[in-house]
Amino acid sequence: MEVKKIFLPESEMPRRWYNVMADMPTPMEPPLHPGTGQPAGPEDLAPIFPMNLIEQEVCQDRWVDIPEPIMDKYTIWRPSPLYRATGLEKALGTPAKIYFKNEGVSPAGSHKPNTAIAQAYYNKIAGTKKLTTETGAGQWGSALSMCCALFGLELKVYMVKVSFKQKPYRRLMMETWGGKCVASPSTETAAGRKILEQNPDSPGSLGIAISEAVEIAVASDDTKYALGSVLNHVMLHQTVIGLEAQKQMEMAGDYPDIVIGCAGGGSNFAGLAFPYIRDKVNGKDIEIIAVEPTSCPTLTRGPFAYDFGDTNQMTPLLPMHTLGHTFVPEPIHAGGLRYHGMAPLVSQLVMDGLIRTESIPQTETFQSGIDFARSEGYISAPETNHAVAMTIREAKKAKDEGKEKVILFNWSGHGFVDMAAYEAYMLGNLSNHELPSDEIKRALSDIDALPKPKQYKAGNL
Amino acid sequence: MEVKKIFLPESEMPRRWYNVMADMPTPMEPPLHPGTGQPAGPEDLAPIFPMNLIEQEVCQDRWVDIPEPIMDKYTIWRPSPLYRATGLEKALGTPAKIYFKNEGVSPAGSHKPNTAIAQAYYNKIAGTKKLTTETGAGQWGSALSMCCALFGLELKVYMVKVSFKQKPYRRLMMETWGGKCVASPSTETAAGRKILEQNPDSPGSLGIAISEAVEIAVASDDTKYALGSVLNHVMLHQTVIGLEAQKQMEMAGDYPDIVIGCAGGGSNFAGLAFPYIRDKVNGKDIEIIAVEPTSCPTLTRGPFAYDFGDTNQMTPLLPMHTLGHTFVPEPIHAGGLRYHGMAPLVSQLVMDGLIRTESIPQTETFQSGIDFARSEGYISAPETNHAVAMTIREAKKAKDEGKEKVILFNWSGHGFVDMAAYEAYMLGNLSNHELPSDEIKRALSDIDALPKPKQYKAGNL
Repeated sequence: MEVKKIFLPESEMPRRWYNVMADMPTPMEPPLHPGTGQPAGPEDLAPIFPMNLIEQEVCQDRWVDIPEPIMDKYTIWRPSPLYRATGLEKALGTPAKIYFKNEGVSPAGSHKPNTAIAQAYYNKIAGTKKLTTETGAGQWGSALSMCCALFGLELKVYMVKVSFKQKPYRRLMMETWGGKCVASPSTETAAGRKILEQNPDSPGSLGIAISEAVEIAVASDDTKYALGSVLNHVMLHQTVIGLEAQKQMEMAGDYPDIVIGCAGGGSNFAGLAFPYIRDKVNGKDIEIIAVEPTSCPTLTRGPFAYDFGDTNQMTPLLPMHTLGHTFVPEPIHAGGLRYHGMAPLVSQLVMDGLIRTESIPQTETFQSGIDFARSEGYISAPETNHAVAMTIREAKKAKDEGKEKVILFNWSGHGFVDMAAYEAYMLGNLSNHELPSDEIKRALSDIDALPKPKQYKAGNL
Repeated sequence: MEVKKIFLPESEMPRRWYNVMADMPTPMEPPLHPGTGQPAGPEDLAPIFPMNLIEQEVCQDRWVDIPEPIMDKYTIWRPSPLYRATGLEKALGTPAKIYFKNEGVSPAGSHKPNTAIAQAYYNKIAGTKKLTTETGAGQWGSALSMCCALFGLELKVYMVKVSFKQKPYRRLMMETWGGKCVASPSTETAAGRKILEQNPDSPGSLGIAISEAVEIAVASDDTKYALGSVLNHVMLHQTVIGLEAQKQMEMAGDYPDIVIGCAGGGSNFAGLAFPYIRDKVNGKDIEIIAVEPTSCPTLTRGPFAYDFGDTNQMTPLLPMHTLGHTFVPEPIHAGGLRYHGMAPLVSQLVMDGLIRTESIPQTETFQSGIDFARSEGYISAPETNHAVAMTIREAKKAKDEGKEKVILFNWSGHGFVDMAAYEAYMLGNLSNHELPSDEIKRALSDIDALPKPKQYKAGNL
């Protein structure tokens, strides 16, 4: 009998995170202070993050030890199993071997707890009593709520209003774990009230929700802010995914020709891909693909520029691919991956030619999710379906070319609480939205006056 | 670092199911033909089940080989991990060691696919083209839908109307896998129309839904019926849970003093417990506890009697604990475990004194689920919370008595699609319903005229 799942024993879990900064061909350009435009220092971040996480944000060491209390909590769901997608291979009739890393086994159902548990821990030992955060589809908010429960921290989550309404189950998960969740924009903050004055019916956006969460964190000494993606330390924590996968692929006796992850802020993609970026920098012939929705085409169409992480211009300026901090995807887009920016680390690696970028329309992603469910059993999160769809494209290509490619993708989460989006697709209510160039240009006009990175590159409009 | 999860390698998966009938102190009394009242033979079941499953239903062999194609599909989620609930132990400050078998890792999120995959396979090789079934909370219907997709069978699911309305996500899961799902009672069957004539607002019940599914199966040669619990072959298939657990407990270096499962029709309980029943019959000192809701107290208050499996009196009469085939639990009860009867195998083992029975009110079960989520991370299905609540009771008792008990329970499924029930609890909208004796007596009056088993025992009214 062929082995379907490759389990790594807990004793073989990676004990260090991998920091891709140590192996990047081009050094990162610094974040800039939002007011002065000068490089931001640790003190600029101190009002919102504890110093131990700020140190990780700028750390250049290749390896960072994982503290024992984090290892202990990781064992609740880690190491996650690596699967061979034999059912999908047969359904496609492809000679490709398809593997996926199942991050849906965590209690929150996605990869997000990999960094949530670390951030809760570092805040706990730094004396933080309460965290604030934003969440879009709710995966991050629920993950952080679970991890705050495990470390005894209070939590307040600002959830993008359109998702708050569409995804009550995610909110209820947060509350089951003890977190408080409000729809953003809310009347609780100056940032929220400002948006509501301009547009009382605002569906919200991650950029707005971040402004609200940051405002609350800044206002109180024992309250800090936590971000679920984009930042360097988040990418660092997620590398447990790829480090485990490398061991498991070795156990399976294969090495991937192609590594695939979906990308919104970049964290699940980076988690799987960065350890393989290291291999690639060291000479391995491997293709690494980040997949995003055509309706939020940050990597494929946005410029590489300095931009704010939030709508209200409170965060430092980050060098990244962006659609502009006022960008809000069309409500017709059913899934996550809606953030206007992209992790600076991922953005820089795209600039360096180490990552291929692709965008896929949503109807193809949902159909791919259904094909996957009917051949492999598991129902994927809508975000994850972007990786599934790209995998199917590459597996079909391998079939056409008669090549025995090895494909590895990150199954970043399950879709149990996203069934309403599947219903919309099955009822034929979803269509695709190719963003017109002038829509992107409008959103990007807000960043025209900002400083430009040395490597500035115009978007693909 | 203490090991949190015990993984059994796929190569160590049990290759035979365990048949408890071979070790029961009292032989089972036979099912009776619903018309004649005489012992029912294989030919009586042939209109609704394929002959290979009917043979399993009456099989007396201790061990039954698991066919290779079923083993192959089992690897999609099996062996399921055994967890040590260290977080819950610490939260309770108990000296008890708590283990749980995580059946929530299956694509459908519960233990149900263990038999669904077997039933789909046996029907497939017997030439069945289409299956019909009933489902209550939706766990069974979604599990069978997933498994029919994997074996290329059509499926029609009659879903209890109150759940159909409350749990749209379960219906959408069925549809994602390709199954068709309708609310029961429906106008598609004579059984459904009869109920609707009497009560157009009927919330439905498992008994009614079974009548509808059986009626459709009987009417067509290539259509068969599948039942998710109660029957002997279902219990047989579920024993993979306990057989794996026995190997994993040995790997952990422990043996359980107490084994706990929640019981509706009895299948997840039996799956974990029956291999331990064998140990108990062979002299092991072990307590085995079946837990049910106080609002559907089949084992704790129902008589041991002959009764129909369905409301419309179409199925054979089974010797079991029952609340009467017209029993419908109060709508105030939020969880599953609503079936009027109980697996004859479980019922007989209760009669033989090998199983202790307990009932727990629903508010205690939900609070236990929240305590579990905040200490162990995982959100349980409302059904599963009955086992969690019983485990917490026993762990507290061990603390009071200062005893280092080893407790093993079946974590039969996750609660991702049951968050509305958690919301009802958190909002204070759930109360407990202790069934008045006259309510039970009314439902039981329908079975007064039926034949009585030799071991007939009156209920606890």
